[in-house]
This record gives sequence, structure tokens and C-alpha cells, in this order.
Amino acid sequence: MSKVTPQSQDFSKWYLDVVKEADMADYSKVKGCMVIKPYGYAIWENIQQELNQRIKEADVKNVYFPLLIPESFLNREKEHVEGFAPECAVVTHGGGKKLTENLVIRPTSETIMYDTFSEWIHSYRDLPLKINQWANVVRWEMRTRPFLRTTEFLWQEGHTAHSDKAGADTEAHRALQMYKDFDREFLALPVLTGVKSDKEKFAGALYTLTTEALARDGKVIQAGTSHNLGTTFAKSFNIKYQDVDGELKEVWQTSWGVSTRLVGTLIVVHGDEKGLRLPPKVAPIQIVIVPIYKTDEERDAVLKAANQIKNDLKRFRVQIDERTGVTPGFKFAEWEIKGVPARIEIGPRDLAKSECVIARRDTGEKVSYEQSELFTAMPKLLDEIQENLYQQALKFQQDNTRSADNYEDFKKILEEKGGFIISGWCGNEKCESKIKDETKATIRVISEEKHSGKCLMCGEKADKKVYFAKAY
Amino acid sequence: MSKVTPQSQDFSKWYLDVVKEADMADYSKVKGCMVIKPYGYAIWENIQQELNQRIKEADVKNVYFPLLIPESFLNREKEHVEGFAPECAVVTHGGGKKLTENLVIRPTSETIMYDTFSEWIHSYRDLPLKINQWANVVRWEMRTRPFLRTTEFLWQEGHTAHSDKAGADTEAHRALQMYKDFDREFLALPVLTGVKSDKEKFAGALYTLTTEALARDGKVIQAGTSHNLGTTFAKSFNIKYQDVDGELKEVWQTSWGVSTRLVGTLIVVHGDEKGLRLPPKVAPIQIVIVPIYKTDEERDAVLKAANQIKNDLKRFRVQIDERTGVTPGFKFAEWEIKGVPARIEIGPRDLAKSECVIARRDTGEKVSYEQSELFTAMPKLLDEIQENLYQQALKFQQDNTRSADNYEDFKKILEEKGGFIISGWCGNEKCESKIKDETKATIRVISEEKHSGKCLMCGEKADKKVYFAKAY
Repeated sequence: MSKVTPQSQDFSKWYLDVVKEADMADYSKVKGCMVIKPYGYAIWENIQQELNQRIKEADVKNVYFPLLIPESFLNREKEHVEGFAPECAVVTHGGGKKLTENLVIRPTSETIMYDTFSEWIHSYRDLPLKINQWANVVRWEMRTRPFLRTTEFLWQEGHTAHSDKAGADTEAHRALQMYKDFDREFLALPVLTGVKSDKEKFAGALYTLTTEALARDGKVIQAGTSHNLGTTFAKSFNIKYQDVDGELKEVWQTSWGVSTRLVGTLIVVHGDEKGLRLPPKVAPIQIVIVPIYKTDEERDAVLKAANQIKNDLKRFRVQIDERTGVTPGFKFAEWEIKGVPARIEIGPRDLAKSECVIARRDTGEKVSYEQSELFTAMPKLLDEIQENLYQQALKFQQDNTRSADNYEDFKKILEEKGGFIISGWCGNEKCESKIKDETKATIRVISEEKHSGKCLMCGEKADKKVYFAKAY
Repeated sequence: MSKVTPQSQDFSKWYLDVVKEADMADYSKVKGCMVIKPYGYAIWENIQQELNQRIKEADVKNVYFPLLIPESFLNREKEHVEGFAPECAVVTHGGGKKLTENLVIRPTSETIMYDTFSEWIHSYRDLPLKINQWANVVRWEMRTRPFLRTTEFLWQEGHTAHSDKAGADTEAHRALQMYKDFDREFLALPVLTGVKSDKEKFAGALYTLTTEALARDGKVIQAGTSHNLGTTFAKSFNIKYQDVDGELKEVWQTSWGVSTRLVGTLIVVHGDEKGLRLPPKVAPIQIVIVPIYKTDEERDAVLKAANQIKNDLKRFRVQIDERTGVTPGFKFAEWEIKGVPARIEIGPRDLAKSECVIARRDTGEKVSYEQSELFTAMPKLLDEIQENLYQQALKFQQDNTRSADNYEDFKKILEEKGGFIISGWCGNEKCESKIKDETKATIRVISEEKHSGKCLMCGEKADKKVYFAKAY
């Protein structure tokens, strides 16, 4: 009997079962915080390593700013503090004494960084300034779920300053494209991209760009965001530079980030009834070899062949499951829950033919291979699995993106099917809020394409084509 | 004129000048916390990458535990809380409300981790358990100095559990040896290793092993520690396993860590009057090429050759300093402050002979090379620089390790020369404390060798050979 509740029966329970049974994370006794276990952390480490390289290729330098932010810094930007103050953890005592000024644990680092930016930036020659940090942040959350929403999470936050709006626009879009490419190429995640409505944008931003992924329960996850901050923070933190013409001007800024939420996104986009399905590129174990034998003699021969195969495939992350006391069937189920992309089964009968069986996690298909062809066949097979997971997720996203011209149809689709719903919107926040209040659906992105039709809510002329969905 | 105060004039000021002029870190407005700038962070990233690999080779798995620890957890182990509570930053409010229980920001993670260990460990089959995390920690410090002592710092902390004392002993010594090898091979740091006195050991440990490096001002830095925690925490956190014989037993534990302090250690051990000197393996820039020219025509030819050299040396981290508006001499001084191991100077006269000049940062020596031999000569040269920095530091350490048989000599050496002073100690904490109170010198390590002579302080028979020094 499977240890995992069927997705169709209770998706939330399925999710928690997968996190537990795949040994990815544990609850901690600190409210809303999780313990990331080795298997979950290895996925995050792979994400970090690959994304870190892409960030560096864009000539962004890594730095580290303090965890603690003076409350007065947060208060300097009105919209920003309104957005984040209710979520802050506050340090009032240090070294046994009450502090003269409270410190908040960073919910994001704009304010602590930009105070320093004002000291680093003087001239047009100091621009663009492009930095990034890998760090933990804390946002007090009421309802949490491992990886998807936790009080403390790990992330990277890029912060840049430019001489003009065009520079910040370009950077905000570069970061968005970097995330989209990374999601597609490394995580096999199709994402919808676009701009957020003012109601949904980052607190303090001019505009927010976003990558949105569709989970298999029809709900949507904000997987990464990139903000053009305009000159809002430059004004609050007095970040000015002397331009070529000698004039003193405010900088234009961006910030952009992705977090451990990406690990949760992998689970809800690729997971199936049996558990996790990991794209090979991000999988901590890409290939598991399960030896099958009855006698000691068989065992020696099979393990010898298994080690030979492991050696042939050493450019990959391969593990032989040598455990005794559990059946091959038990092992199969466990590696399926953990989402290992390819499983090699090898027993005496395979040995006799110099073959082995490969079971693909993405399709469940089992195919026999000559042992000698694995060296050339495996790279192709893993590429195929990577691509197939992407195509499956893309098809699911396309099949679950529907249009609704009127509110009745909209509610019906939302209720019965979920997914993205394309509609017209007049641009009025009242309509947006009313739809959210009545249906819990929010505008995930505003399309670049223009709409010609009516607003879903008020029926007035609407030129905005928007994607609605219920979100995590 | 140099931007760096001479070491001999004011070592502390020299240190701060180097940190500032090499662009490694900035002060932040949060008390005792620093901003790690790109050049400083790149050094830390290189340390992380190399050490992370060595940790994984020892079959230790990376994880992540919460930043915040319930105060009651800290209170469960008496010695531990006495050691750390005075240094804690305390969160009393979260999400706009007063918390029912205060949370401390981790000063170290024993208590939050071991509460979970009691759930992970049930049987002898769960042992040894070996995990590590890369994280930030906060300890409220009165007197801080960038990298060497900061309120927040970055580190790795390894934590293991074993079935018996022998297992924990072996692991504590393995971690110590890993640090010693890493210091020697990657950072070119000679370190003195040994066990701490009870007064100086980690709060809650059975014993503490340490690596101690000697700075060029004669003061000593604790660069890394490894603790055998005995069964102290197993008792407080109820971590028990059922042994093969069916009996319920307490686990034996270790923890071990190094931090961003290693970056400061590199500075004070290898630095010279001109600034930083980085061992090639850890240097963010291993080779800098400074083109020298007067006319545009010369510039084109020289830059072409510089790029050819860069390409020949692409297995290394190479940068061409193409800045205009500053003289080659200005550039030389700047790269010397930043400690780049090898500088290649190339001008029209070198071009004519297909040569270039290499200036070694470790010796200051300048030698001409054929451009065509760089590909084979540079790896050897960088190895030589790496080894020479180690040998220089080792010689300094040996030259500054002296013996004292009586307290008068001891004080004289301490006052006039500093460094390590080998003496006899009876083992009584009163003598140790009195020496510390009167001279500020502490026992850095107790040697494995036995002493035959008298105690420095009380004159009683002393069988402990100890290394005293003033420490950072």
C-alpha cells in the first residue's frame, strides 16, 4: 500500500506525504519554520549552484549584508514598511540589555542595503551597481506549508542601481528572462510571465514582473519575481550620483529573487500519484541501481556488475542501493517516492544476457538495455526524461488555461477546473478586489497583448488581458 | 604614498586599512555587523566551495535548521546556556504581537538541532548521524573587528551523533585534521593544534580541540574548533538509541566549525606592509595583467597580447586591468593591496621580445618570461607562491614560539615579543586564571607531550606542557 495519499483524493495531504516520505523536510518546534533534511537540501544546493553561475555570468557580484535591520530604516519608505512591518520578527534585547532601537530580522534587504548604496554611489562611473546575496529571511506567516510558505526561508536577492529608467527596465527584464530560462532548462518548469497589477506588486515597486507556475491541483505559484523599484528608494535613502553633465540625479533600482519555494514548486508541478518526479538536472540522485539476487553467489556477481555500471556512468550522480533486509519491490517504491529519474534493475537473468532493465520515473516504462550501451544511451535517456517532464507540465498548463467572457463562466471554470483563466479587466482595483473577495482568484499577470472586450466584473470596456487564478 | 599604515607602527590600524583599501568589507549601521563586499565575499565563497567538498567526502550531509531557537531549548543544558545566554539577541515580538515564548537568534545550533535528533535517532542503525549546515549566527559582542570578531558571522557547523565515546573521539579528531589539512593545503596557514583547557573549552563540551594561527603581531587566533560533546546534550535532549543488545543508550556527540574569521586570519597571517597577500588557491583573482602603453597603436598591440596571455591561462582566474586614466604604478599598488599573487606587466618593449614581466606578490621579485612559456610556467609559479607563503608563515610561527621556565621570563617574552610561549602548568584553573588576569595570556592548547618541570605560576610539579599566548 502506498504511503502517499492519492493526489485526486486530497492534494494538500498528498503534498505533505511526499515531503515526509521523500525525506525532504521535517517540522520544527519553532512556529512556521521547517528543518530542511539532506535530500531536500541537496535539491536546493543544486538550484543554488546552477543559478549562482547564471547570476555571475550577468556580471552580478555576491555580497553579504547584515541579518538585522534598524526599525528606522524600514520606516523610511512608507509603502515598503506598510507591506512588511506586519510580518516582521523584532529583536528588542541583545547581550542581556534592552536595545535603544529595535532591530527587525530582514524580511527582504532593500532598506539595509540601500542605506549603504548611498555611500557606494557618487558618480555615473559607479553605475550600474549589481549585487546579489544568498541569505535567510523571516516573514511571520499565519498558515505555513513546507517549502511553499514558511516563516523563515532561504533565497537569493539581487539588487541593482542604474543611471536611468531604461537601465532598470532592461535589468528587471533580464532577471525575469534568467529565471524563465533557468526554470525551463534546469527545473523543466513552464512558467507564465508578465507584469503584476498594482495591487499585487512588491511593496515600494514601480512594477513587478513575475514567473507563475501551475500546480497539478489547478492552483498557481509565484515562483520568482523581479521588480523595477523606480526612484522610490533612491528618494528615501538619498542615493544620488553626479552624471556626466555634472548634474546630481537619483538612481533607478531593481531587485529580484527566488527562494526555497522553488523546491515546493518542483513537487507540485511534477509530482504524481507515486510521489516526486525530479528532472535529472536538479536530482540529487539521477540514477539508482537496485541489485536483485537470491543467493550469495548471485549477490557477488550482481554487485560486481552494478559497480561496473556505476563506474561507466560516473559522470552522473549514481547510487547503488545495497541495503539488505528489504525487498527490491520496497526499494522501487521508495526511489519512486523520492523521484529518482532513472532506476536500473539488474539480476542474474539480466547478467546472463549482459543486459539490465531501466525504469523511467517520468513514464513508468521499463526497457532492457545492453550493459555496454549504457555509457552512450544514458545521457540521451536523461535528456529525454528532462524534456518529457517539461512537455508534460507544459501540456497540463496549456490544457488548464481557459478563457472566460463573463463572470458566471469564470466562476464555473474556477470552481470545477481551476487553472489560469484569461479575461478582460478594466484596470480598476475595485473590480480586482471584488473578484478576489468573492472567488479568492487574483490577477497573476497582465498580458502584454491588448484585450478587446469587456471587464469581467463591471462590464465596462476593458483593454487589459489578464490571467486569473487561485494561488498558493 | 601608501594608503596602508605600516604594520610595525600600528597593527590594528594596518588591519583596518587593509580591509578598507582591499575593498573587503564595510561597516554597517547595525552595531558590530559588517557588510561583506564582493572581494571579501569571493574569498569566503572559495573557502566554502573547497571545504564543502571535503565535508561531503567525509560522508557528512548538508541540512538547514531554523534561525530562531525557543529560549527554553537553550535553557535545557546548564553549562551551554551560561556560556551563550549573555551573548544572545532575543526576538520578543513577531507578526505584530508579543510572543508567548521568546526566541533567540542562534548563537550556535546544538539545542535546536538536538531536539530534532531525539526524533531522528532510535536504533543503532541510525548511527552515526553526520550533518552540517552553512549558516549565519549572532553573538552579541562588545568589541568587534571586521571578519575577526563580528556580532553576526557566517560559518559552517558540523554535528554528529555516535554510539560510543570512541566514535565521537574519532570524529572530533577527523574534523580537526580536516581543518588542519584545509588550512595548510588551501589557505597556506600553519596552525598549532591540540586540546583546550576546561576553562577555554566550548560551553557544554567534554573537550574542545582547536586550530590556532599566529598573526604577524604576535597574537593568536582560534581559527577552528572541534568538540567532543560527550553525552551532555544526549542527557538534556533525551537522545537515546536501542543498541544491538536491545539496551537503550545515550548517544555521544561532536560539533565542529569554522567561520568568516578565516578571512581575517588570512589577512593577519599573510599580510605585509603593502597589504594583503593571498595564497593562489583561495585568491578571487590569481593573476592580474597590467598593460603598459603610451600611444593608441601601442595600446592595441599590448591589449591583443594581454588577451592572448589571458586565454593561454584560462584555467586560472585572470583579470586584465584595462582601466584608463590611472597610471600602471597606481594599478600595481592597488593589486598589491588586494594581494593578487601574480601580476603580469606587458609593454611595447616586452612585446618586441615576445616576453612579459611577472611580479610575485609573495617576494616582490620581478622576472621576465617568454610569453610562450607562461602556459607551462604559471602553474609551477603559483604552486611556488602558495608553498612559499606557507613556509614564510611557518618560519614566523617557529621563530615566535619560545619556552619560559619561570613567570618573570614569561612576562618579559610576552611583553617584548609575543607569540606562543611554552610552559609547564599544574592543571589548576586558579593558576590559569591568575596568569590571564595579570597578563591577558591564555592557554591556547595543551600539548599531547608531557612536561617535566614546574608550574609557571605556583611552582608545583607540572606534567602539562601548554602553549600560552595573547589571543584575538
